[in-house]
Amino acid sequence: MPRAHAATVADVLVWANLRGTDSHGVSRVPRYLEMIEAGDLNPAAEPQIRTESAASVLIDADRAAGPVAMTFAMAAATDKAKQAGIGLALARATTHTAALGYYTLKAAGEGVAAIAASASIPNMAYHGARAAGVSTSPISIAVPGGERGPVVLDLGSGIVSIGGLALARRQGKPIPEGWALDEAGIPTTDPQRAEIPLPMAGPKGSGLALMVECLASLMVANPILADTVGRPARGRRHRQNAFAIAIDVARFGDPALFAREVDRLAATLKALPRNPDVPEILMPGERGARSYEKRSRDGIPLPRRVADELARVAERLGIAIFPVN
Amino acid sequence: MPRAHAATVADVLVWANLRGTDSHGVSRVPRYLEMIEAGDLNPAAEPQIRTESAASVLIDADRAAGPVAMTFAMAAATDKAKQAGIGLALARATTHTAALGYYTLKAAGEGVAAIAASASIPNMAYHGARAAGVSTSPISIAVPGGERGPVVLDLGSGIVSIGGLALARRQGKPIPEGWALDEAGIPTTDPQRAEIPLPMAGPKGSGLALMVECLASLMVANPILADTVGRPARGRRHRQNAFAIAIDVARFGDPALFAREVDRLAATLKALPRNPDVPEILMPGERGARSYEKRSRDGIPLPRRVADELARVAERLGIAIFPVN
Repeated sequence: MPRAHAATVADVLVWANLRGTDSHGVSRVPRYLEMIEAGDLNPAAEPQIRTESAASVLIDADRAAGPVAMTFAMAAATDKAKQAGIGLALARATTHTAALGYYTLKAAGEGVAAIAASASIPNMAYHGARAAGVSTSPISIAVPGGERGPVVLDLGSGIVSIGGLALARRQGKPIPEGWALDEAGIPTTDPQRAEIPLPMAGPKGSGLALMVECLASLMVANPILADTVGRPARGRRHRQNAFAIAIDVARFGDPALFAREVDRLAATLKALPRNPDVPEILMPGERGARSYEKRSRDGIPLPRRVADELARVAERLGIAIFPVN
Repeated sequence: MPRAHAATVADVLVWANLRGTDSHGVSRVPRYLEMIEAGDLNPAAEPQIRTESAASVLIDADRAAGPVAMTFAMAAATDKAKQAGIGLALARATTHTAALGYYTLKAAGEGVAAIAASASIPNMAYHGARAAGVSTSPISIAVPGGERGPVVLDLGSGIVSIGGLALARRQGKPIPEGWALDEAGIPTTDPQRAEIPLPMAGPKGSGLALMVECLASLMVANPILADTVGRPARGRRHRQNAFAIAIDVARFGDPALFAREVDRLAATLKALPRNPDVPEILMPGERGARSYEKRSRDGIPLPRRVADELARVAERLGIAIFPVN
């Protein structure tokens, strides 16, 4: 992979660790390498704009690393927004987009409101079904802020994330009813059997995921779900499509006023009376911003098993790795 | 109200009844009249484009009836999308938007994918708070379809709608835990005390609602929440802002292929193995489309109390009303 692209991937993964989203951090490196070795991720890919209009681009990501494709897409959407008020970038045939909040937050830093979402293989139940029918389709929305910084929402459309199920599995703790199905599609509270998360708020979560597939995949004639639902996961290629939308705040009003109003809204909500079991009312992304600050200062605690795995793949590839203790 | 605007309002309300969404149907007429009488809804308003760019418009709705403002906004977003790939219309100072699916579905009929959302006064708990901090902010997304027709998702960001709570109140049935707070912010299962719905999926639902306020209200320098949260509801003006986004399907591929793929995806998901308690797997908007067909043929069953109320306001205003039986 060209050095600049590798640096982008590293930046996005380490950012997720800094934000405390370890499920999307450097622990993904071994999987990314597998994707390269399987031919699912093209390390030589350079995302290209295929068609372009006043406010939109269709990008052929050519199976580039997700961070490379999404950085390119969010920048293109931001450029278009600055020219046209709103901008859309469709990224066709990308790979694992990593933490979407990275891109929307970066865009917010450039004065736009940003929306990004990605479509992937079926790994979440469609409402009413006893099988994976849609993807957990992450969606992120960010807006520039004032002294408190941008607000960034980053959510999956499942009631629990795949990473959340993996964590429950490692901890051996039963999961709540209504969270997941087992491989056969039967509801389960056993974390060792839980495979398929259920959608958040039933039809709302799976409806959002379905719409992400329509907007990201069908819009660029690269359907993922209809080709893979009900087929064996083994041997299936890793595939994603994504979109990024940017809206130029300065086009519609004074950006300084917007920033102050975002701060004022956050302060208003944070001052509301709280549930007794909630120590503080948090804005979307606030916990991540605190983790970012703390971990930027104190370092990222890396579980031994992740550090060992990184050391193993580094050794296999003959790459020097800084000692981890 | 000019005859054409009244016809738009009537069309949108009756559409909601035809779709089976009676909470957003003609039962709203008395409330709309109150809004006119209180000066919250300006019947003479003509929505005006204030600023315009290649892909966006900022509309001053001047407190027009929501259906008038949103029809104008969705049409403007669709026009922009046809020119620029994507189009954005921000509707500043509108009133109750009614059923958002009406506008997105209409846009889908013109070959665009459409997203609409509206921001309103605080009526839903912010996650972790014991008070209304955000609005139930409806969001609708629609895409053109093929033989099966468009797919239209229409959701509120609450775990239950305000209409859903009102229904439970009329039926006198206890509501599930985790649905609502009472006026004082205490969780309740008593439908007579339930006032404030909780957000769907906790921070996800209230995060989405917060973002709708940022995108629809702060973007046009017309904040609603920060001015009203924690203040008495009595005497408060009815206010909304909204946005509509359209994406031109034909710009990025063959619209006939897109339509076929939407149909294929729906057919694939509908054929998944089902929960035993689910008679059929439904696409977003499918139940509404069936109701539309049935009620267009058989008529809309109107509860006696709604019919009586309509007759009363008609009499008060000296308007002839067709006899309801």
